[in-house]
Amino acid sequence: MKPLVIGLDFGTESARALLLDLDSGLELAVAVEPYPHGVLTHRLPSGQPLPELWALHHPADYLQVSQVLLQKMRFEAYKSDGEIVGLGIDTTASSPLPTDALGTPLALKEGFEHQPHAYLKLWKHHAAEPYAQAINLAHPGFLQMYGGTTSAEWSLAKAWQVLEEAPEVWEATARWIEVGDWLVWQFTGQEVRSSCQAGYKAHWQPTGYPEAAQLRALRPGLESWLDKLAWPHPVGQKAGGLSQAWAQHTGLPAGIPVATASIDAHAAVLGVGVQESGVLVAILGTSSCHLTLSRAATPVPGIAGIVADGILPGLYGYECGQPASGDMLAWWVRTLAWAGQVPENQIFEQLNLELAQRTARPSGLLALDWWNGCRTPLMNASLKGALSGLDLATDPPQIYQALIEATALGTRWVKETLERAVGSLPRVVVTGGLSKIPAIVQILANVLGCEVEASSTSHASARGAALYAAMAAGFPLPPAPPAHSFIPNSMAYLDLYPSYRSLAEYFGFVQTKEVRN
Amino acid sequence: MKPLVIGLDFGTESARALLLDLDSGLELAVAVEPYPHGVLTHRLPSGQPLPELWALHHPADYLQVSQVLLQKMRFEAYKSDGEIVGLGIDTTASSPLPTDALGTPLALKEGFEHQPHAYLKLWKHHAAEPYAQAINLAHPGFLQMYGGTTSAEWSLAKAWQVLEEAPEVWEATARWIEVGDWLVWQFTGQEVRSSCQAGYKAHWQPTGYPEAAQLRALRPGLESWLDKLAWPHPVGQKAGGLSQAWAQHTGLPAGIPVATASIDAHAAVLGVGVQESGVLVAILGTSSCHLTLSRAATPVPGIAGIVADGILPGLYGYECGQPASGDMLAWWVRTLAWAGQVPENQIFEQLNLELAQRTARPSGLLALDWWNGCRTPLMNASLKGALSGLDLATDPPQIYQALIEATALGTRWVKETLERAVGSLPRVVVTGGLSKIPAIVQILANVLGCEVEASSTSHASARGAALYAAMAAGFPLPPAPPAHSFIPNSMAYLDLYPSYRSLAEYFGFVQTKEVRN
Repeated sequence: MKPLVIGLDFGTESARALLLDLDSGLELAVAVEPYPHGVLTHRLPSGQPLPELWALHHPADYLQVSQVLLQKMRFEAYKSDGEIVGLGIDTTASSPLPTDALGTPLALKEGFEHQPHAYLKLWKHHAAEPYAQAINLAHPGFLQMYGGTTSAEWSLAKAWQVLEEAPEVWEATARWIEVGDWLVWQFTGQEVRSSCQAGYKAHWQPTGYPEAAQLRALRPGLESWLDKLAWPHPVGQKAGGLSQAWAQHTGLPAGIPVATASIDAHAAVLGVGVQESGVLVAILGTSSCHLTLSRAATPVPGIAGIVADGILPGLYGYECGQPASGDMLAWWVRTLAWAGQVPENQIFEQLNLELAQRTARPSGLLALDWWNGCRTPLMNASLKGALSGLDLATDPPQIYQALIEATALGTRWVKETLERAVGSLPRVVVTGGLSKIPAIVQILANVLGCEVEASSTSHASARGAALYAAMAAGFPLPPAPPAHSFIPNSMAYLDLYPSYRSLAEYFGFVQTKEVRN
Repeated sequence: MKPLVIGLDFGTESARALLLDLDSGLELAVAVEPYPHGVLTHRLPSGQPLPELWALHHPADYLQVSQVLLQKMRFEAYKSDGEIVGLGIDTTASSPLPTDALGTPLALKEGFEHQPHAYLKLWKHHAAEPYAQAINLAHPGFLQMYGGTTSAEWSLAKAWQVLEEAPEVWEATARWIEVGDWLVWQFTGQEVRSSCQAGYKAHWQPTGYPEAAQLRALRPGLESWLDKLAWPHPVGQKAGGLSQAWAQHTGLPAGIPVATASIDAHAAVLGVGVQESGVLVAILGTSSCHLTLSRAATPVPGIAGIVADGILPGLYGYECGQPASGDMLAWWVRTLAWAGQVPENQIFEQLNLELAQRTARPSGLLALDWWNGCRTPLMNASLKGALSGLDLATDPPQIYQALIEATALGTRWVKETLERAVGSLPRVVVTGGLSKIPAIVQILANVLGCEVEASSTSHASARGAALYAAMAAGFPLPPAPPAHSFIPNSMAYLDLYPSYRSLAEYFGFVQTKEVRN
């Protein structure tokens, strides 16, 4: 029987399972399940209201959708006459939850069901912002590999929020664990954390987590965070075998290897078939994530994270990002839909049709892609977007194109920032929702002035998770999914970058000054 | 019988007549007539196609609508038991036409009906741009009172275009005359030009028109322009009496004084009741025009024109402008209507409703009002608009508010520029379409940090033309129309101006550099 692996990809609104044939590299089946409780932003299931900026998940949802998805994959494997030989997991991050010493989420324990802090804090829970700011203002030494800053979305700021705002919950928290690591624990019965989750979201480095003294200096008691973590294992390793209980839940064979967890974006590198240095992998979605591999760790300002074994064992994984890409386009569609009646997807189609006719020439406008702040390289979430070159003849598709150009220009800045650390990146591979729109990838190639390969897989993260399972199970990796190549077809876009940098310098400086005043 | 005057106001699409009661100052009647041929932008009535950027009027249209409007006013005067004692005229400018020595437009003469250059070049005919640029690049001395630049919209550039592109038309042109002056000639039988038209649009100053040598230096033969002009008379004077022929056409009494013509914007100063220095009059329409009076002529960079007797006899009239105001708002409405179905006027109403709820706080964005270039103070038509401070939560009414703030911020810059020349301007009076929207005037007051008076007349230019007729007929002027006063109600807007100036400095510099490159 042919060997198959399952990748489970846990997103914000739903989870997805992919069944991968290790001989052919073909994706045999995909299934998607929404979380029964969705994202909790206004109230807990018990009715308890939530403050602004909160975003929680119900931990039980993960187990429930996992069971359904794994059952479906088992059935698909049966249909295709294959044998499931491993299971990999990727999740959003940092999405940590507090559990007791046995891994039971506090949210599921009596007495905590009305306590918001007992639930899983989703990556986009932004209520820990004051704690992130306090950490950054203190300039602690453990941020060297993170461009000098942490984020409200990461583990430490979220932990500090619990300690500060619900000390009784923090007291009851034996383990503070990323949901990916927690799922591995659930599936195998063993708490095995991943260097990807720990490195990118909890400031773990080969030298260790932040030191107790550093944490105490931030806030006495914060060092207790360390007692609730664990030393991580590289990605692509076997964390354990599937437990008897989960074998019974799902019909999968007990004991098959379950790989250490990874973060969705980082899993996509392997998912598009990249295993070597010299390649920029850009995941162009709601936001953008830029990843590359290198044998050396060279901290450069503006790189959000450099983690040993974080993407592939034996290599340093580098991470950069743009906090709004597809989100900017969705904003423009929403703006154009404001007056009413026309559905957003129809406007999106109209814009894409127009765009396809226009890519031979730049929009004539110049935008700054900071609709959600600037992550790489300025690491300033308070920066705002800008649009220039407007006149009475400017039309909506032109602004749409300018927003796409801005995303591409920001990507070029990210690429140059990464190249300062790791040297030349002659290959660029893109995946994610925006990579499926040819005009958008063409503009990226034109702005970067180099070939861009758009991976054909629509499930790069889930495929990556499946491939980690193959590695964990000791199987050779199948061929990479094919890619469609985009070659620059207009020189005119190359002129935009110096203007973009000038604009970025002006607004980066002016807005930062205004925030400080 | 009570004394009445008629103001005829010739706009771009239509002309309007106003009947004013000189005892009460009440506007007794208003009538509007569209030009039968409209604006000729694509072809002549004969079918002859026009190149891009052209905009012509048919001279006969002016006579036809004048006859209809004057007949209507005569009937209204009869109904109200009044006596018409004078006629005043304001027009767009520079809107010159070529005529023979008797004042017959070449366009109406056989052999010229297919010749585009024989028609009236409307103010917004922009095809003379290369000639304006050639004049400006030569830095001739006669531009001192015009901020150092002429415009493609003005008389000399348009004349040069005829000389260059249709020498046979130029040869046949005995008189090159603004349509307002030409109408005075038609109504009175006497060619009497106005200092307003000559001063603001043909570089006339008390020292004379540009010198022949200066014009020859630009282009041999261009000095022939001077032979086709005439020395102007101050506004508010009697140019002549209404001719027997026009008395017969209209039923008005022959011999009643017809005042020298004025430009529509400039007539509005008198129209809102301003006759003294120390007042900024802003006409906020599609574009904005800013006017003030002073006893002295002090050229300052960025002031578009300083003309003796140009607005009121015995005073210097100062002119500045913003080339897009209402146009920017219309652009935004058009943008929001792009997706279809919702009519633009409905969107405009929706935006104004939202705006009225929000004026207590600035939009949070910052825009540069250069959607059609910057006239005052940078005098650079190639500059473009910009919008900053955008994020994913920015909504359409916020951008609408930002565009209004930008118009107000630009007005503040204009006011400060004028104050460098004429000293403090403690009073601000606004008129024009945008002045009828209270939230817009409130924002202007907040940005300027001073009281703004919105004149109640909806016909400031026509009222001004009527008042010039009253002056020409020797009648005392009636009281000014009442105004609604707007007092600043938020300090928060005062912070915007330094940021606006910084933005203007950046884009003024960057875009100018790009154009030069």
